[in-house]
Amino acid sequence: MYDPDFIAGCAELAMLLEVSATPKPGNVDRTHDFEDVTYEHFLASSVGTFPVFKKAASARHRIGGLILDAVQASATWQSAGNCHFGAILLLIPLCAAARKSSTISQLKTNLVSVVKQTSSADAIQFYKSFRSVHVRVGEHHYLDVNDASSLQAIQQQNLTLLDVMQISSPNDTIAKEWTEGFPRTFYGAELMTHYVELGFSVKNSIVHLFLQLLSEFPDTLIAKKFSTDVALEVSAKAAHVLKEGDADEFDKELVARHINPGTTADLVIGSLFVVLLGGFRY
Amino acid sequence: MYDPDFIAGCAELAMLLEVSATPKPGNVDRTHDFEDVTYEHFLASSVGTFPVFKKAASARHRIGGLILDAVQASATWQSAGNCHFGAILLLIPLCAAARKSSTISQLKTNLVSVVKQTSSADAIQFYKSFRSVHVRVGEHHYLDVNDASSLQAIQQQNLTLLDVMQISSPNDTIAKEWTEGFPRTFYGAELMTHYVELGFSVKNSIVHLFLQLLSEFPDTLIAKKFSTDVALEVSAKAAHVLKEGDADEFDKELVARHINPGTTADLVIGSLFVVLLGGFRY
Repeated sequence: MYDPDFIAGCAELAMLLEVSATPKPGNVDRTHDFEDVTYEHFLASSVGTFPVFKKAASARHRIGGLILDAVQASATWQSAGNCHFGAILLLIPLCAAARKSSTISQLKTNLVSVVKQTSSADAIQFYKSFRSVHVRVGEHHYLDVNDASSLQAIQQQNLTLLDVMQISSPNDTIAKEWTEGFPRTFYGAELMTHYVELGFSVKNSIVHLFLQLLSEFPDTLIAKKFSTDVALEVSAKAAHVLKEGDADEFDKELVARHINPGTTADLVIGSLFVVLLGGFRY
Repeated sequence: MYDPDFIAGCAELAMLLEVSATPKPGNVDRTHDFEDVTYEHFLASSVGTFPVFKKAASARHRIGGLILDAVQASATWQSAGNCHFGAILLLIPLCAAARKSSTISQLKTNLVSVVKQTSSADAIQFYKSFRSVHVRVGEHHYLDVNDASSLQAIQQQNLTLLDVMQISSPNDTIAKEWTEGFPRTFYGAELMTHYVELGFSVKNSIVHLFLQLLSEFPDTLIAKKFSTDVALEVSAKAAHVLKEGDADEFDKELVARHINPGTTADLVIGSLFVVLLGGFRY
């Protein structure tokens, strides 16, 4: 079985490596901050969430409660609020599933059980965590978080957190990961391993991974903040950059347009967690 | 009393913030790696040492054994060996002293007890940690680490780890911190608080802190690697940069000459730990 300190360390290092890769077009990275959130906020959020990942990796706890704990721990350590919401939604079930695993293959199997075992209590805790930070919510997204009747609906219909993710999945890649067994997360882990084997540095492998995932999966955050068309346009550009473009130019363009592919960053974190848990060292 | 997770989190975030500040003349930072050690190695080392800092902050353990544990934990998570040796020598007693503290004033008092309570067993563990990583050792530095008679001398004369630090202190700022109650560490914490209050960003405050400490305390690592004269020259240049110079130019010069003020970086980490433990958030 993986050790809880090791599991939580993999989660934290995944967050640190992701935010540190550069150029990571459009997102906060070590070379540029946003007005309301800086690179240093991400460092503090990564440190602050470690104990919650360790808790998830140590004993069976409610997934919804762990998500709420992690969101609050992140916000205790820095003032920029929602730094890692999507990453936490992936990492909490990953850490919980890693607890009973000794291999990545077992991790895959256990992940399916972990999300299936969620209840309506988990869904309610998830909504609380949603409210405790500012999260961008599109229409028809995770029911309507600001509507008290959503909570009633969860209770009356006894919707589990997995049910809520099912409802949200048509428009949300993180929710899709939950309902489909985290295929993009594991796919990204394979890509990362491949890039490292090709001899790319850790930093360049992560940039490559980011662009590849962005090119294949239109970014949920961009779709919600702008439109599906913009998300598709950005994915097409990422594909172009991978073939013959300039990542620095792409970065400048996205930053200038305030387009940040935040969901892709979350997927990269999930993939890095899997790679580190599988034994990757540098 | 400070919580163990909080204490260890402060140690880790101090390491992350220090390596992330830029330009930090001559050292690895987010904009430049060395040939044998990269920014990503420091991230992994910071993550890997957290459980040992938590152990130090949770119950009474031998300081020498904790130092050995931390050095080995760092090396388990990355392949560049001695990333944080000096920082660990400061942070382990700081975390152990924080365990029984509720204020920075108590931390100061408890630090003196912690180092006074070391024994020859601690000194021997310290030597083991020294040997497990490549640490630059000048003449007359920490006795002679490669000489078996040093270990015999420790046992025969019943030298404590504090005694060893006393012997090394004329030529080593970290050893001086041990024997003098960590005055530069706490002074740096006051400076950092002052810079933040002046309205500098976290990143710029750390760069300023680094330059100020470098200007006042000739860097031990530079003195050992080159000479006392070079260390004095670099300190004088740091003072000049603070007044009217260009930190980027200074950085380029030191990098070109392979001069890295590593001991100053260690002091900055100690100071940041104190500031974070005292409640600083951003």
